[in-house]
Amino acid sequence: MDHRPTGHGRTGPRIVATRTLARTRIFHVQELELRFPNGTHVRYERLDGGGRGAVLVVPLRDPDTLLLVREYAAGTERYELGFPKGRIESGEDALTAAGREMREEIGYGARRLTALGALTIAPGYIRAHTHVVLARDLYEAPLPGDEPEPPEVVPWPLDDLSGLLERPDLSEARTLAALLLTREHLRREGRG
Amino acid sequence: MDHRPTGHGRTGPRIVATRTLARTRIFHVQELELRFPNGTHVRYERLDGGGRGAVLVVPLRDPDTLLLVREYAAGTERYELGFPKGRIESGEDALTAAGREMREEIGYGARRLTALGALTIAPGYIRAHTHVVLARDLYEAPLPGDEPEPPEVVPWPLDDLSGLLERPDLSEARTLAALLLTREHLRREGRG
Repeated sequence: MDHRPTGHGRTGPRIVATRTLARTRIFHVQELELRFPNGTHVRYERLDGGGRGAVLVVPLRDPDTLLLVREYAAGTERYELGFPKGRIESGEDALTAAGREMREEIGYGARRLTALGALTIAPGYIRAHTHVVLARDLYEAPLPGDEPEPPEVVPWPLDDLSGLLERPDLSEARTLAALLLTREHLRREGRG
Repeated sequence: MDHRPTGHGRTGPRIVATRTLARTRIFHVQELELRFPNGTHVRYERLDGGGRGAVLVVPLRDPDTLLLVREYAAGTERYELGFPKGRIESGEDALTAAGREMREEIGYGARRLTALGALTIAPGYIRAHTHVVLARDLYEAPLPGDEPEPPEVVPWPLDDLSGLLERPDLSEARTLAALLLTREHLRREGRG
């Protein structure tokens, strides 16, 4: 038995003030001043997403093979294995951005793009969303990207999820989340 | 056939310079100047993790029931459903922090804690890691937390992953990633 109140139908806090604490080329740090219905008054810092969010593509080269990319990541200072991803640019929707990022990072376009949902990362601190898109019916159509070195394309059997999770360079929460959404989506299609 | 070089055994870039661009109570924005082996010279902004990282706990109240929490998230300005999580404090390791966060957020301690791995979120931009811990053999042991209002505890059947993924307040990549790691871990235990 849970000992805490369930709190359904909470109205949520009121935003009393918002101010910019720092702004760089990439990051915008804001302070939010909130008042909760119980009178509690708190200040939170967060990163404003600033823009249309990001997209992450799960490319299926054929029904049994995922395509991943291995790239240097400046945040963790090591090579990370993941799916093609990037910001949604002005004038793009999530599917258009997905198609472009694929062509830039793995050299394939897709005839069939399916939106699987939008993810947050650390929603207590970060406003931005990442749209997950499944890409099928691929064709070769490379576009030049802005990567400092060509990404390494890594094909992986869709059935070998365990092996993929054991790779030390596979660590990103969005990659694992996208794998779960993909598996769930394909399972439903198979039943449909 | 992939048209890009595979690039195994890449040496990676050299960090030429690191400087602080902004520092607030929570965030530390750095600029990294990198030189890649091919001569490309780039500047990246990133958030320094600053500290021991974070922990996310997957509590199993019984073999069939997950416990989640629903809390207001200042980043996205809405209530989000997820697992108990928080920073690893000074003097704690990931398992100790997991035990404390559980007690604070859902009012349970755990006799059995299992490390499932460490996640990154946006490794191109964020240095921090989140350790995922599976918690079993729970017992009631509430500790006061620092939340502005008591978190709502939401039990969910472990078998009903599809239903959980359909909830509009379940969006965080780390939550989905932790569900995948948990399912994989329990599957392996079941076979062992």
